[in-house]
Amino acid sequence: MSFTADDHRFMAEALRLAEKGELTADPNPAVGCVIVNDGEVVGRGWHRAAGEPHAETLALQEAGIRARGAVAYVSLEPCSHHGRTPPCANALVEAGVTSVVSAMPDPDARVSGRGHDILARAGITVRTGLMEEAARALNRGFVSRHERGRPWVRVKLAVSLDGFTAGADGRSQWITGESARADVQSWRARASCILTGIGTVLADDPRLNVRLGGFERQLTRVVVDSDGRLPEGLRLTTLPGPVIVASCVAPRDIEGVSWWQLPADLAGRVSLPALMARLAERDVNTVHVEAGPTLSGALVASGLVDELLVYQAPCLIGRGRALLELPGMEKFEDRLHLNLIDQRRLGSDWRFLYRLA
Amino acid sequence: MSFTADDHRFMAEALRLAEKGELTADPNPAVGCVIVNDGEVVGRGWHRAAGEPHAETLALQEAGIRARGAVAYVSLEPCSHHGRTPPCANALVEAGVTSVVSAMPDPDARVSGRGHDILARAGITVRTGLMEEAARALNRGFVSRHERGRPWVRVKLAVSLDGFTAGADGRSQWITGESARADVQSWRARASCILTGIGTVLADDPRLNVRLGGFERQLTRVVVDSDGRLPEGLRLTTLPGPVIVASCVAPRDIEGVSWWQLPADLAGRVSLPALMARLAERDVNTVHVEAGPTLSGALVASGLVDELLVYQAPCLIGRGRALLELPGMEKFEDRLHLNLIDQRRLGSDWRFLYRLA
Repeated sequence: MSFTADDHRFMAEALRLAEKGELTADPNPAVGCVIVNDGEVVGRGWHRAAGEPHAETLALQEAGIRARGAVAYVSLEPCSHHGRTPPCANALVEAGVTSVVSAMPDPDARVSGRGHDILARAGITVRTGLMEEAARALNRGFVSRHERGRPWVRVKLAVSLDGFTAGADGRSQWITGESARADVQSWRARASCILTGIGTVLADDPRLNVRLGGFERQLTRVVVDSDGRLPEGLRLTTLPGPVIVASCVAPRDIEGVSWWQLPADLAGRVSLPALMARLAERDVNTVHVEAGPTLSGALVASGLVDELLVYQAPCLIGRGRALLELPGMEKFEDRLHLNLIDQRRLGSDWRFLYRLA
Repeated sequence: MSFTADDHRFMAEALRLAEKGELTADPNPAVGCVIVNDGEVVGRGWHRAAGEPHAETLALQEAGIRARGAVAYVSLEPCSHHGRTPPCANALVEAGVTSVVSAMPDPDARVSGRGHDILARAGITVRTGLMEEAARALNRGFVSRHERGRPWVRVKLAVSLDGFTAGADGRSQWITGESARADVQSWRARASCILTGIGTVLADDPRLNVRLGGFERQLTRVVVDSDGRLPEGLRLTTLPGPVIVASCVAPRDIEGVSWWQLPADLAGRVSLPALMARLAERDVNTVHVEAGPTLSGALVASGLVDELLVYQAPCLIGRGRALLELPGMEKFEDRLHLNLIDQRRLGSDWRFLYRLA
């Protein structure tokens, strides 16, 4: 399909609008829409949060009568299903737009193409795939959940130059400086849930919420606790916000905790693929992992990690807790190659974002 | 002392000239000189190599008669001693300059101030300390040797993201990519000698010469070999260029090898402070270390390392050879803080230059 420079310009605007919902739309995708009549933008919309109007609805509202004969640019295929709001594809037909350009089809195989079909059957010209890469990147977690049946998984690590995340005495507070630690909060805020292990919970009694810009926000916290050791009264469970315990043993009744009994792997620990599948079923798009080397390493070794978010501090610890426990890597050839996709200095630390192949 | 903007401009030019000798002047300092008559530069000189004319001599030659009444800017106090060339201080007096500005006094306590004295006694206005920091940085090794009685020591390391320098099978070729490895050559070229340990020599039979821009250059290679295990016939000793073995045991006669018998430390290994003192006595300004974690770690632990030159590769090795063995670091509080002074991307690797406190 061929697109003009104007097509690109208007889709770029739709994508910019979509970005406004990046921290709030979850578990829905962030979507933006621009209605263009005779070369002029007459309506703009973006989806803020589940239960609120979709981008197309808002853009059509603003356009009003001028939607008739217009072109709609949407960063994702308009929906075809009756959810909390009526299908956007039908709304576009009713409003009388004559052409729709979408950045990508809906990644949910069950509905993919249906929105485009409704439009096409109503005689609307439909073109898709414009700036698709940017659109997919914007909703990486949502796309992952639907296309792969598992969330996008990002593991956060704070490490010394010599590869340790804590001293031989187990202490790690604080390897990195204030600005690195503040930066972590913004990455938590981008995730659907925070995943950790029972070891970290028992050792640190962490809050694992989002403390950003003066307000605290509770995300779903998921604790991998194969043997069901989680005690009562931790900050995790007493502070507001949902907590899920992923365990191999039968549920225990703990105030404020949902208990998932999951299959065990060969070592008798929670099957991580099963956990990820379950999280995806429960609409989790993006998992932010802050765990010890055992769980983080097991996730990497299972091929379940998409990104490593590494804060490297300019210090030598000498001896201590490893970055990741990666079982089965005996030879130099076994090493895992990473792609560095972003790096930034934060105070005297460096932040690296790596993607696994 | 107060300096004008013109003073700064002319000294900056002297420093730029000095830089030309950075790779060749060793063991002499890199020095630059500018002669200014009535605001106009009439002579320029820089010291290329030991045995060749000093910067002041060349600048005075170019200035000729116009040196009379001129101001000389020198990046280091003019020498006062009869070496392979006559003292520059006397040459400046004889040429009739009326004012000398130097960036720093000679760091050699035995002669420091004597050059300035000769000038002052001849009625020349002497000012010193202009852009001193830059001048000291230019001859960091030379300054270190004279002020601290030991060379400037830089340890080169190539490491994975998880802090390993080799796999569990001992293999390490190659953690980093081609451009990082090429970059190492230019750092070797800047050093007076390359220091390694017997373990590395026995494991890798390395050449440890400089392969840069199509030519090979032999530096002095120093092997720490406490028990005197160095065999005959290694590339290190059969390729041209001097080799020093630093050992605790009595000399063995190996073709092409100078054997230094040095005091042992408590563990029966070569005393590293004694080795560094000896190297300084033998006019070694800068030591480039490429060794395993035992020797590199022992140097760091002894407080003998000034800089870490770290090439970090985007990979996870999982298990293997540590970056540095740092005995006695048991607690998180024991960690060593580093100052990052330079970083650069080389292919898919990153190069960090850290300075130890």
